[in-house]
Amino acid sequence: MKQAYIISTGNELLTGDTIDSNSVFLSQKLTDIAIKVVGKSIVGDDSRQLRAAFLLGIETADIVISTGGLGPTFDDLTRNVACEIMGCNMEMREDEAEKIREYFRCRNRNMPKINLKQAMFPPEAIVLANKKGTAAGMYLQKENKTIILLPGPPREMKAMYINEVENLLKRDKLAKSNQSVSRTIKIFGPGESQVEELLGDIINNNSISKAILAKEGEVYIKIEAEAQEKSQEIIDNITAKIVNCLGISVWGYDDDNLLVKLGEMLLKENKKIAFAESCTGGLLSRLITDIPGSSNYFWGSVTSYSNEAKKFFLGVKEETLDTYGAVSRETAEEMAMGILKASGADIGLSITGIAGPGGGTDKKPVGLVYIGIAEDNYCNVRELRFPGDREWIRILSAKTAIDMVRRQLLS
Amino acid sequence: MKQAYIISTGNELLTGDTIDSNSVFLSQKLTDIAIKVVGKSIVGDDSRQLRAAFLLGIETADIVISTGGLGPTFDDLTRNVACEIMGCNMEMREDEAEKIREYFRCRNRNMPKINLKQAMFPPEAIVLANKKGTAAGMYLQKENKTIILLPGPPREMKAMYINEVENLLKRDKLAKSNQSVSRTIKIFGPGESQVEELLGDIINNNSISKAILAKEGEVYIKIEAEAQEKSQEIIDNITAKIVNCLGISVWGYDDDNLLVKLGEMLLKENKKIAFAESCTGGLLSRLITDIPGSSNYFWGSVTSYSNEAKKFFLGVKEETLDTYGAVSRETAEEMAMGILKASGADIGLSITGIAGPGGGTDKKPVGLVYIGIAEDNYCNVRELRFPGDREWIRILSAKTAIDMVRRQLLS
Repeated sequence: MKQAYIISTGNELLTGDTIDSNSVFLSQKLTDIAIKVVGKSIVGDDSRQLRAAFLLGIETADIVISTGGLGPTFDDLTRNVACEIMGCNMEMREDEAEKIREYFRCRNRNMPKINLKQAMFPPEAIVLANKKGTAAGMYLQKENKTIILLPGPPREMKAMYINEVENLLKRDKLAKSNQSVSRTIKIFGPGESQVEELLGDIINNNSISKAILAKEGEVYIKIEAEAQEKSQEIIDNITAKIVNCLGISVWGYDDDNLLVKLGEMLLKENKKIAFAESCTGGLLSRLITDIPGSSNYFWGSVTSYSNEAKKFFLGVKEETLDTYGAVSRETAEEMAMGILKASGADIGLSITGIAGPGGGTDKKPVGLVYIGIAEDNYCNVRELRFPGDREWIRILSAKTAIDMVRRQLLS
Repeated sequence: MKQAYIISTGNELLTGDTIDSNSVFLSQKLTDIAIKVVGKSIVGDDSRQLRAAFLLGIETADIVISTGGLGPTFDDLTRNVACEIMGCNMEMREDEAEKIREYFRCRNRNMPKINLKQAMFPPEAIVLANKKGTAAGMYLQKENKTIILLPGPPREMKAMYINEVENLLKRDKLAKSNQSVSRTIKIFGPGESQVEELLGDIINNNSISKAILAKEGEVYIKIEAEAQEKSQEIIDNITAKIVNCLGISVWGYDDDNLLVKLGEMLLKENKKIAFAESCTGGLLSRLITDIPGSSNYFWGSVTSYSNEAKKFFLGVKEETLDTYGAVSRETAEEMAMGILKASGADIGLSITGIAGPGGGTDKKPVGLVYIGIAEDNYCNVRELRFPGDREWIRILSAKTAIDMVRRQLLS
């Protein structure tokens, strides 16, 4: 498997004003054709930094791809630095110079002389056409190393990669035709280190590389086997073992989305759901309606942020609020039963809790959350204690509620 | 001016699965305190790559800040590599070990033994408390170089930077005290290029640098004057001219948040607000409840995603839905009046529209949105047509609704 190093240049990438979306695009594209990205550097328009990044790239990878710094002005240094490091001299390409003159002629503009700098290339380089601007790219191979220079503006860079670079990488057998096999197994319930403990030796297999990632309350296990005869079989085997070990906590694979999954399950069972939210304040509704077509299974919700709203819309009893408080098992149950009855939906889901930072007490600390699921005449309430700040408690509450519905639909 | 180098670690950053938002945050924050970011490296969970990145960082900058790789699992390597490169030995810190044990005890969970790895630090290091997780950070100075290790999860990293790192950088005089003066003027209403046209020559002043940025429907104008005797005066003068030119469209400055602003205005007028959402599906409620203390002015909301919910909870007439449709001026008005009456709040706000991708027609295309504001016996409805995809239409709808309330409160 060939390795690539990506360099993004531009001062605006170092001040935080602009996000480096180019390297994200290239990472995805290279991964797709089984080229492994081993590192990235982001540098300003500074030849010393640029040189260090190219040296590190050449030292650690087979392919170095850079974006930016191909323009005509003084701070466009990439071509010079790359050629210097590869030990190549540049000369004027008359055909490229003519293209640049033509570009300006077509637009009835005078060509600044400095633009001809963009027609300078080493004789051994392949010039990559830029159909959306004047800065041509460059593809250069020397001593088993490949250097690819692309322009900085994302639409120019993407078009050049897709139209020119990918074919060259395949032609030169740098992209593998038989790719590695990977799978991401998605889990809700146990935490990152708990998953690692539960799995024990299952993922300690020398034929695969693996990673365990925590993502907004979910845990992802990514396993990957290098391209070889049995790689699909290896991945399938290990996946089966992981699923066997973690059981119902596994909810999906690869690009699966927990909310889409829930929607599919509800559609399949022809069930509609309605929410009664309190501390999540609309987050749960927002998550389910992020998915197009959710109106087929989502009836609607009430965000009962005040006690009045709990009483008026959900029929929570004054007595219950007085005796047990708004954050209690009893209120969660009445909220869930209330939205179930008011809506006529099949499932009523409620959340009430203390998201903080204020409002916590010794008995009812910040992070205490009750989640209720009502179906028919029965309501199941869980008490949870979440760590973290307001945002995190709200996210974990909403995700846990969704997972509870998923588990209930499976049972 | 001190120079910083940022290292982000994690395999997921190299496959394009996850965007490295941490380094963008750090770039902004460091730039704010006059530390110049000269480069960034993104590396996988690979000690060779990590070592190369740290070496490059130490070679080119005064400060190296890394995020990620502080967890307890096998692929968390940052602490080891950083200490090795700085020539420091690690030892167990009993107080840190106890904190980790306590974290698990509080949550009634068994602590996996590997978690104790997170209590190992060099004796000369300052341990940075992690209030949102178990991985503590590290601040280490040796031979004029400063190494700062932060955790990878953005919410943990940001809290640690703000609570601990910034003060240490100031204490150690790495941040400049004699700073330039800047101000960000925040606008809702006119678009980016419209703002530029309206301002004309006001911001074309050689004493300042300026930028106009579009951010989730808002427009920010950032002006900055280099440190000098009159820089505050220059910035104040230009700000006054901008406010004079753009009037009520200016809603805040610098770190101001539109939702916090709205909350302050509602509190001041002692008014409560309630929402009736349709296409935004809870997003508006979520935005207002993101702000702690919002229960003082937010009564609650109904996400009436189905016609039944609009009829049952908001009293929208069957006839109105049949004649004009769910996305219409008439329905928006009945929704706003309905939530106003049901809640007894002072302001009722409604949104109904077509967020797409499906559901659009020639007469009612995707992006058509009606927003209603009801107060007393009067309801004002605006028809809007937003560009973009589902997510963008939902965000613009919610933000525009909030801005309409802001303008109404000012009038």
